[in-house]
Amino acid sequence: MSRDDGGRLVIRGCDVLRIPAEGECDVLRAQDITVADGAIESIRPTREAETAGEVISGHGLLAVPGLVNAHTHSPMVMMRGAAEDVSVEEWFNERIWPMEVNLTPEDVRLGAELACAEMISSGVTAFADHYFFPEQIADAVTASGLRADIAPTYFSSQGEKALEATAEFAESWHGAAGGRVTVSMGPHAPYTVNDADLRTVSEHARRLGVRIHIHAAENVEQTQSSLERRGITPIRVLHDTGVLDAGALIAHGCGIVPQDLPLLAEHSGTVAVACSPKGYLKHALVPLTPVRALLDAGVTVAAATDGPASNNNLDVWESLRLIALTQKQAERDATWMTLSDTLRLATRGGAHALGLGDRIGCLEPGKRADIVLMDLSGVHCRPLHDARAALVYSARASDVRTVLVDGRILMRDGRLTTIDVPALLGEIDGRVARLLDISHGTAVQHYDP
Amino acid sequence: MSRDDGGRLVIRGCDVLRIPAEGECDVLRAQDITVADGAIESIRPTREAETAGEVISGHGLLAVPGLVNAHTHSPMVMMRGAAEDVSVEEWFNERIWPMEVNLTPEDVRLGAELACAEMISSGVTAFADHYFFPEQIADAVTASGLRADIAPTYFSSQGEKALEATAEFAESWHGAAGGRVTVSMGPHAPYTVNDADLRTVSEHARRLGVRIHIHAAENVEQTQSSLERRGITPIRVLHDTGVLDAGALIAHGCGIVPQDLPLLAEHSGTVAVACSPKGYLKHALVPLTPVRALLDAGVTVAAATDGPASNNNLDVWESLRLIALTQKQAERDATWMTLSDTLRLATRGGAHALGLGDRIGCLEPGKRADIVLMDLSGVHCRPLHDARAALVYSARASDVRTVLVDGRILMRDGRLTTIDVPALLGEIDGRVARLLDISHGTAVQHYDP
Repeated sequence: MSRDDGGRLVIRGCDVLRIPAEGECDVLRAQDITVADGAIESIRPTREAETAGEVISGHGLLAVPGLVNAHTHSPMVMMRGAAEDVSVEEWFNERIWPMEVNLTPEDVRLGAELACAEMISSGVTAFADHYFFPEQIADAVTASGLRADIAPTYFSSQGEKALEATAEFAESWHGAAGGRVTVSMGPHAPYTVNDADLRTVSEHARRLGVRIHIHAAENVEQTQSSLERRGITPIRVLHDTGVLDAGALIAHGCGIVPQDLPLLAEHSGTVAVACSPKGYLKHALVPLTPVRALLDAGVTVAAATDGPASNNNLDVWESLRLIALTQKQAERDATWMTLSDTLRLATRGGAHALGLGDRIGCLEPGKRADIVLMDLSGVHCRPLHDARAALVYSARASDVRTVLVDGRILMRDGRLTTIDVPALLGEIDGRVARLLDISHGTAVQHYDP
Repeated sequence: MSRDDGGRLVIRGCDVLRIPAEGECDVLRAQDITVADGAIESIRPTREAETAGEVISGHGLLAVPGLVNAHTHSPMVMMRGAAEDVSVEEWFNERIWPMEVNLTPEDVRLGAELACAEMISSGVTAFADHYFFPEQIADAVTASGLRADIAPTYFSSQGEKALEATAEFAESWHGAAGGRVTVSMGPHAPYTVNDADLRTVSEHARRLGVRIHIHAAENVEQTQSSLERRGITPIRVLHDTGVLDAGALIAHGCGIVPQDLPLLAEHSGTVAVACSPKGYLKHALVPLTPVRALLDAGVTVAAATDGPASNNNLDVWESLRLIALTQKQAERDATWMTLSDTLRLATRGGAHALGLGDRIGCLEPGKRADIVLMDLSGVHCRPLHDARAALVYSARASDVRTVLVDGRILMRDGRLTTIDVPALLGEIDGRVARLLDISHGTAVQHYDP
């Protein structure tokens, strides 16, 4: 069924994970989810006799809201595993930014397509991307059937024309693909984009009705450096340049300090912080995103993978597990970041972070039909005392069986329906040697925050 | 092929991960691994024409040494996901130890069988177990074809007869199942087993030629408590009661302090520490196992899952990934705990921890044929720049295709050959309600270290 045919689809006899805005998640047993025009029409106790268009068997499966990956650089799958066991500085300056000089638009298109394949396979139905050649990503997303918010990466070193081009991209693509593609402005970070440009970006965002996706206070050293160089924190820079007011998805925020919290809380309706702990651990960061302080201040936190050149995959199940584990340890409190709160971050939290809280993030009538069917019958999940515990601590991305976005089936029983993976991998493998060659000695940018 | 038929088997055309005792791991391309009498006979560039008994196609697959799970309580799969978001004290005293009152020998047998199914499926070929009803576990291991070292759990509260019974178990079972089953003495911990019993255990171990598997210094609070109550650390207790001298596999050791290191180093040939970070994070422990200090002192560290009631699965891939991530962060050094060192912990480290360093832990002629074939062709591993990086940071347990122990195929192309999983799960599901019922108000022990 495509979302355009107005037809109906029913997922028959599945269990359904309910994720309320607050409080405990729970599981409704043996439901039928009816989908019409790409939205969830009803969720009701199953009635085998009813026929309503296409039927997907949900028996023995758990329907969960599609996961949201709230911050990534999807085409960086091309550099997966190519920069290991190095410091943040070496990762940027000696590996990744030199490799990115080599990227062509076609590399980005193929990388984004592979990333879409990986995300669909692992139950991610929406993602916030931040990268170069955004049209290529938008094309890949459109073809894949996924939902994405795409921010074209901008450094001040690229100049005014490049900044204008990102605004033009927003104008052309925001709301495209039947609403599946949205756009945010994508200034890279306060240490690579100057204040004048940040003000211009904020004006574009307000004018176009889009938000801003930006790295800020990625680690506490950046915050200290900003305080030393200019006397204010990176979050204060975002506040003073209008970025928070325009609405901001802030990546990482491990360096968010107490004086930043009121600034973020002031804009809690449109501001969110994306947390992707795997890369923080791998690059030996202390502290991590202050998730508890942010939530206590009323600021949304969402789960993310960051780019696969640091995270090595696009697995949001792994991210949400790592958030639960690392936050319990960071707060010295095993009773905090509960199963329900963790599941909420990766669904409702992500939806809000992408500005899509009214459309996705939970399975309720009226929401878009972004639905993932999980198979928790594997030996690694049994006996199944608590499906929520299985999702957070036992399950794997490989337990995802079927994935719908806007009611369209993007994977059915483990088979992708929109992407020809063998052909894609054939094209990609031929590009690897050129991509990794950094003998040119140049880089897209220098890391010195 | 069974290990008894003396027949030969060849894995044709696979890549082979070499894990040296020191230095970088690497990958040999397109090899044939020949197995005879349960051991690796040769690893040579592939020659398609050769025929030598049964052939397993290894094309497109990477052969790695079977992973070792150096500390678990395998039958606790029965309580997976039944004690979440609680402190260590509540986990022991209000959940797990009350539930363990309900366990029957048959529950343990079925739990161990399910655990074996999960471990085979995820590429674990040997494990160190520590639990009650050890005969049931030994039966399950024997039938499954896995390799295990089994320690019968003992508390001093059980009395002298129970201690003698554990020695009798060692006498009966050490070296059974063609050498696949070994036994260690299993005193629970220095805070549940008194010094007199630890001395008796050490004597039994020396007399029987077996080792001792024990929890010690699980967290730094235990070390502090031991120092306050009796003036010495838990590791010093093990030293003074002869446990280290007999040879000890120490679980966790997050509370190992600098003055313990010389005691452990003195016995580095027979002592090892098992590290299972998921549970430490989940229970908000700080600090973690001091892996760097231990390795620097020449003490073996191995990867482990602990029991699935805290770890929620038996996935050693997840454990080794978490060890790499958490150790980099704990040491504030992204360049430490490299890909090669991480892979070594879960293979050679585990082999040494189980006292099997001469038999397993790497793929070399003369070693037992405990071999796992991994499929790294999934979208989440591609492009594959570095197989070592894929194993540590991208791959999943579900990428395991084929598993051999002693040259016997326990899983082939994802199908288990020795365990009837549907029948097993049917039996287990009927036992769940009784197992989780703690209305009796008793417990096997009280946690107050």
